Amino acid sequence: MQSIENYKAVFEQYLSQGHFTQEPQRLYEPVNYILRLGGKRLRPLLALMSYHVFADDFRKALPVAMAVELFHNFSLIHDDIMDEAPLRRGNPTVHSHFGLNAGILSGDVMLIYAQQYLLDAGDPTLSARLLKSFNRCAIQVCEGQQWDVDFERMNTVSIPQYLHMIEYKTAVLLACSLEMGAMTAGASDSDLHHLYEFGRKLGIAFQLQDDILDSFGDAGKFGKKAGGDIVQNKKTFLILKALELANATDKATLLRLMSTPTSNEQTKIHEVTTILRELKVPILAKEERNDYHRQAIEHLDQVSAPGDRKLALYQLAAFLLDRDI
Amino acid sequence: MQSIENYKAVFEQYLSQGHFTQEPQRLYEPVNYILRLGGKRLRPLLALMSYHVFADDFRKALPVAMAVELFHNFSLIHDDIMDEAPLRRGNPTVHSHFGLNAGILSGDVMLIYAQQYLLDAGDPTLSARLLKSFNRCAIQVCEGQQWDVDFERMNTVSIPQYLHMIEYKTAVLLACSLEMGAMTAGASDSDLHHLYEFGRKLGIAFQLQDDILDSFGDAGKFGKKAGGDIVQNKKTFLILKALELANATDKATLLRLMSTPTSNEQTKIHEVTTILRELKVPILAKEERNDYHRQAIEHLDQVSAPGDRKLALYQLAAFLLDRDI
Repeated sequence: MQSIENYKAVFEQYLSQGHFTQEPQRLYEPVNYILRLGGKRLRPLLALMSYHVFADDFRKALPVAMAVELFHNFSLIHDDIMDEAPLRRGNPTVHSHFGLNAGILSGDVMLIYAQQYLLDAGDPTLSARLLKSFNRCAIQVCEGQQWDVDFERMNTVSIPQYLHMIEYKTAVLLACSLEMGAMTAGASDSDLHHLYEFGRKLGIAFQLQDDILDSFGDAGKFGKKAGGDIVQNKKTFLILKALELANATDKATLLRLMSTPTSNEQTKIHEVTTILRELKVPILAKEERNDYHRQAIEHLDQVSAPGDRKLALYQLAAFLLDRDI
Repeated sequence: MQSIENYKAVFEQYLSQGHFTQEPQRLYEPVNYILRLGGKRLRPLLALMSYHVFADDFRKALPVAMAVELFHNFSLIHDDIMDEAPLRRGNPTVHSHFGLNAGILSGDVMLIYAQQYLLDAGDPTLSARLLKSFNRCAIQVCEGQQWDVDFERMNTVSIPQYLHMIEYKTAVLLACSLEMGAMTAGASDSDLHHLYEFGRKLGIAFQLQDDILDSFGDAGKFGKKAGGDIVQNKKTFLILKALELANATDKATLLRLMSTPTSNEQTKIHEVTTILRELKVPILAKEERNDYHRQAIEHLDQVSAPGDRKLALYQLAAFLLDRDI
């Protein structure tokens, strides 16, 4: 078994081999810029590890790993435009740095290259299977992003609606990365199913974890200021759960806080988190997260390979959910 | 042989069969909106006709026709955002009507669906060949758009650079539509080559024709006001040719007209077209256009099929270049 860092080093090395050096420079410079901003490389790691469950030379999954990283970064660039986000991983977002047009067009070309890497990942039969999985996922990611935008202006969003949105926006790409890695190694349909479900459940748990950390995380360990979702009036799992459980007075207070401009952010964060705590929302959210995490692990258990071949995936799953709260 | 109108009717009928009726509505409404704006459906027609050169049931090329129409409309939506264009085919552009975010995201999903239609167009071997042709083309279209954006702020653009830009931005998608239609019908590599080159040369001729019509077209017959390119200081073939041929005085006048704000558009159009006429630029541009058109037809001549099977393509090529000047 390789360590998480080792898989990451292999991917970083592959990525550094000058993939986008061609002209026109203004098209490919933003592509290289965002790829160089780094990040966890979670999706490529999942693809490489998933391949490695079934076959030794996991470098054969590098084109698949590249495809999912390109797609992920394409979606970040376009989402950052839609969210008017100035920063990404502590650096200016692509559209802030290079302009709106560069953000749109460089994102587009990354989406096309993601497809191209899958087309080059194997023989036509494998490529067609990979692309079928990928396109379904890519369409769902767009749909998830649209639901997220839609929720901003909807008065009521149910928890099932929210879970469906984060499944599409976040979880299915983790699932697809695992599925495509295993597909490239020739895994059985049953194993593909369990790896897909492992990724899907893990992705939902991961997003719930993000929701919890954003409102109740330790700023020092989490690495960004707590309360951002609350300040932006985001309808996270925490807020939706609170609205479900609150009595009329608390519900009215929450809705008022979420719909009026705030002069003092810290006061608003304090008032909202106090209500969330009173309603035991952090505990309920952790239970929900743990439930998805447990289901994820159960699917990984059922993948028909010796435990030591799955160890890297177990470790990565633990690592993802093990951030301090 | 079918008439141009008949191919178009078959495609329109296919298009009307409710392809994007799913949720979320706000994602797919803009897709249906732009597809319903109509247009010549040139790229689908080329795919259907090209299939029909080699095999009878040209309806089998409908998924390919759909893919190229989706890709074309994706690129229109994103280009209209970059150009800040308010109108498209006499109607509000997608981003004007539905907002920037809808323009970006609905464009993205159309690009993914274009790939999906190609994946569904045949067996894995055919799909992989189609997608290889398509991805190369799609990347070139993005690169062409970037060159077009770059040219706006470059002081000097050469005519070969300009021809390379319009080849990528416009011509390769016509070439790819023809190639993929013929590929679906099982055409030989030699015939694929000649159809591709027919489309590529025809596309360049078509864009040169557009440049000529924009400055010297009969507004009544052409359907839009003449002189738009001149008002926007676009570096078209006409302007680049004039800058190449002009003496120092005319060149200085042209550069001044293109770099200073204009109070009177009609005067500017008159001054620029007068210089172009004096330099015989309209005649030279028509010669260039005719040269590409002739080369296109020579490639179509070399496609190994009886003349009557190619008649629709000859007619379409004539129709495209036969607009009044």
